[in-house]
Amino acid sequence: MTTLLTTRDIGAIVAAKGLAACLGRLVAYLEHDFARWGDFDKSARVASHSKDGVIELMPIADARHYSFKYVNGHPKNTRAGLPTVMAFGLLADVDTGRPELLSELTLTTAMRTAATSVMVARRLARADSRVMAVIGNGAQSEFQCLAFHLLMGIAEVRLFDVDPGATARLVANLRAAAPALRTTVCAGTADAVRGADIVTTITADKTNATILTPAMLAPGMHVNGVGGDCPGKTELHADVLRAGPVFVEYEPQSRIEGDLQQMPADFPVTEFWRVLTGAAPGRTAADQVTVFDSVGFALEDFSALRLLRDLAAELGLGRRIALVPDLADPKDLFGALAVPGAATSVAADRLAVAA
Amino acid sequence: MTTLLTTRDIGAIVAAKGLAACLGRLVAYLEHDFARWGDFDKSARVASHSKDGVIELMPIADARHYSFKYVNGHPKNTRAGLPTVMAFGLLADVDTGRPELLSELTLTTAMRTAATSVMVARRLARADSRVMAVIGNGAQSEFQCLAFHLLMGIAEVRLFDVDPGATARLVANLRAAAPALRTTVCAGTADAVRGADIVTTITADKTNATILTPAMLAPGMHVNGVGGDCPGKTELHADVLRAGPVFVEYEPQSRIEGDLQQMPADFPVTEFWRVLTGAAPGRTAADQVTVFDSVGFALEDFSALRLLRDLAAELGLGRRIALVPDLADPKDLFGALAVPGAATSVAADRLAVAA
Repeated sequence: MTTLLTTRDIGAIVAAKGLAACLGRLVAYLEHDFARWGDFDKSARVASHSKDGVIELMPIADARHYSFKYVNGHPKNTRAGLPTVMAFGLLADVDTGRPELLSELTLTTAMRTAATSVMVARRLARADSRVMAVIGNGAQSEFQCLAFHLLMGIAEVRLFDVDPGATARLVANLRAAAPALRTTVCAGTADAVRGADIVTTITADKTNATILTPAMLAPGMHVNGVGGDCPGKTELHADVLRAGPVFVEYEPQSRIEGDLQQMPADFPVTEFWRVLTGAAPGRTAADQVTVFDSVGFALEDFSALRLLRDLAAELGLGRRIALVPDLADPKDLFGALAVPGAATSVAADRLAVAA
Repeated sequence: MTTLLTTRDIGAIVAAKGLAACLGRLVAYLEHDFARWGDFDKSARVASHSKDGVIELMPIADARHYSFKYVNGHPKNTRAGLPTVMAFGLLADVDTGRPELLSELTLTTAMRTAATSVMVARRLARADSRVMAVIGNGAQSEFQCLAFHLLMGIAEVRLFDVDPGATARLVANLRAAAPALRTTVCAGTADAVRGADIVTTITADKTNATILTPAMLAPGMHVNGVGGDCPGKTELHADVLRAGPVFVEYEPQSRIEGDLQQMPADFPVTEFWRVLTGAAPGRTAADQVTVFDSVGFALEDFSALRLLRDLAAELGLGRRIALVPDLADPKDLFGALAVPGAATSVAADRLAVAA
């Protein structure tokens, strides 16, 4: 039997453990897995592009576990009342291929993306960072704001979105969830970025946009570029990438999907796991601009699925479903059809076809 | 909400409709989709190989639907009481990325593989075929025997497996399900193949085996080669492929995975859809040997998922699960966490972390 976790189960996990604890453990699981980068069989995700969106599969495996995520990106969905991004995923046993855990990953993707941003910012942003600009106030913005507030000590978020309603919703949710976090609604990107220590861009449009320009940068800033994550979908001006060392998750995928897609193939980047393990430097000076060109990598979902499996076991959550057959004789697959009347039906059909 | 079909639901569908009707409709859905080959965004499957097996993702899409299958192949699994092959898959809406149907596909893979074999054999085997040899009597063998019996008029199956217990199980299942089908247990492959009009090879070992040799062939035979479907896993001697025209599902994948993997890159093959649509000839003489080098293509699962969706709707089967969130405001993903106590937990955690 396979354990199924629905969106309701994820809500129950967060309610039981608290968002800070969930995000904190997620960062720990991410760090554990990024630190053993060489253990993983990695590949760029497999994308199926259509007129209004993309559907992707993101597989990864180590010697013990295999995971994949199904995820879409359809910016127009919100007009039809559907989320832009929806996701679910699987954790399976490499030795047998048996599916262990099937889970919703829409809420989880928002949490793992924010946790990844924090994991990286802890090594790249200035330790005294207190103010974060958040450009793009859509579905993932609460998670980014709360993760940086709860885990990084961000005390003020400066918010801008082309849709004022989105910003209003974000402010209301943040006030309810974290009253100590100061929220400042800004008139534009330049206004929001002014005075920020960290700039998070997380917009949804699938266009080659220039949300953040070099004129907006200030010495010592850390840019957490999250929304440029698909061919034809960028947020950062090329000179923002040229302004500081650029860090990525998995270089082959980031070259295709990240803001990096607009740069020459030999533009230098550093894979973050090298900073985490001490193989490469992160920030080297307080006045340096650092850029994390995040696209979302399969390893992050692998870590999240491992955590969900452990949390569900701790809390006794999830439902067991017969996603694959449980056979008394493993070669007798046909026996799994032996519901009452099946054999009779076959024989009756044979007569019907022969007649 | 997404509809979930478990192995039990597939059993209920077959019990309600009968195996012959299910397989017959599956062939019709397959023919419908193979006939519009150009409509599909196709790619070879994405494989993750490990010491004892492989886990694969098989995506495909047309302008309306996207599907993928998760499937493993672990020949040693049966020793641990698990099936060699386990699978599940998804049907999603291309316009929005919304997951419509999540279904078990282990039983369904066995049915769709047999239905594909029949669809192809109807164009390539001699119309007067009555005897089929089945080499490899594992989990899929009942489905092959019954599909050819129920839909192609095969009256006798000649059976061989290195495991006599597997053959005994197959015989017992066939006697119960289709008493009119004659079963002959054979002492070896050559014995089983002698006098057969169609030869189905469907063995499990992940080795470069030579199950079928040219000396065993007779004029007019159709070879339904199903088990050579993975790099390093073949069943047919190279001269069997040279003996007759070779037909495949999707050439780029078959060159990597099929028995074809042992042939030069310019060895000629015909994609089956061309025969189906009349663009290429199938069998051209009664004494010709024809070879279907089947590996299993994502389009077959796409067709099967379409059929399951329709049958589940007809029969009122399946359970609705919250695999992705249903949001009042599609940008308010955070609101989906708003189970009682969640906000309080966040605030409490903040204090705990700050303390």
